[in-house]
Amino acid sequence: MKRFVVVGHLASTEPDFSLNNLPGAGRIDELCRCVAASLCLSHGMRRDTECLLVLLGGPKAPKTIRFSGESVRSLSPDERNIAGLIKKALALPCGIVFRESSPGVSVRKGGLAEVLAECGCAVLDEGGDDVRGVETMPETFILSDHQDFSEEERGMVQDLPAYSLGPSVLHADMAITVLHNELDRRESGWI
Amino acid sequence: MKRFVVVGHLASTEPDFSLNNLPGAGRIDELCRCVAASLCLSHGMRRDTECLLVLLGGPKAPKTIRFSGESVRSLSPDERNIAGLIKKALALPCGIVFRESSPGVSVRKGGLAEVLAECGCAVLDEGGDDVRGVETMPETFILSDHQDFSEEERGMVQDLPAYSLGPSVLHADMAITVLHNELDRRESGWI
Repeated sequence: MKRFVVVGHLASTEPDFSLNNLPGAGRIDELCRCVAASLCLSHGMRRDTECLLVLLGGPKAPKTIRFSGESVRSLSPDERNIAGLIKKALALPCGIVFRESSPGVSVRKGGLAEVLAECGCAVLDEGGDDVRGVETMPETFILSDHQDFSEEERGMVQDLPAYSLGPSVLHADMAITVLHNELDRRESGWI
Repeated sequence: MKRFVVVGHLASTEPDFSLNNLPGAGRIDELCRCVAASLCLSHGMRRDTECLLVLLGGPKAPKTIRFSGESVRSLSPDERNIAGLIKKALALPCGIVFRESSPGVSVRKGGLAEVLAECGCAVLDEGGDDVRGVETMPETFILSDHQDFSEEERGMVQDLPAYSLGPSVLHADMAITVLHNELDRRESGWI
């Protein structure tokens, strides 16, 4: 299993945002691209991968939406389609246990603390070790959206392994794509 | 200069497509993500990069839209924003010389043949050489959208160097992101 967790610091936890203004919903557009980067291949899905979106915008925060490659159906990679699935998840009443809103898409209350308690994580950080030189890769990678991790979040992840992908600071979805490429190469003996 | 050329086999050459249905406009959504992958960094633009979209859908095909990182302004990476710039470019009457429709965005009649005559190109191909082992990288990379190159196109690119990025077949925008990472690392001595 591979898992990418993206913290959306301003991302709406209400389903009433407009599909015509995803950046205005706390940069939901970026989170949609992260889901596509995590799960979509040119002709198929990455069935061994999950993408968790931690949404921190609004009074109902934190909420976490999980897209599971194993059970998601017909996921087009365009932002509007994925945003529609996010809206549907946010409209579903939920507690602290994941509840399915569409095939392969689930939602729960809770945020980064819950993910860290459940998964063996590493964090993406510009000052981290070059990922190409890392011997053993973790199952779960934590990424931030366009905002840096908050002070509280930095405290939560400070003891995790920290990896860097290259000299340029990428959007979270691009970072996921580069990480997948590194993982693909290792799994199939390309390196 | 780095340049990514994406062939959109069904992409609309008319400006009347709906921003609410980019996949229905011949997968304009994918081309929008290619522009973002080519030019956008987390906090800034890649000023040394161009993205050329070769649009082959409809009776006005072929048309080519060029996004230039050097002169484009305020390019948000969301699909809807970039699609708006594509619409504006397609609404501008043009000939065989690039004509600017927005700052940093230009359009002309013509397609892949014109690009190949102007640029030193390589092509992305699953059967190509592993890009990590390539000694000298070209300035321009040619990619296809969700469709394979046509027979005619394959004939046009068959003598170009062909590179592969890894064992998984990626969407064109993901391929651009992985290529940029490889180029970034070489330029800054990370490899």
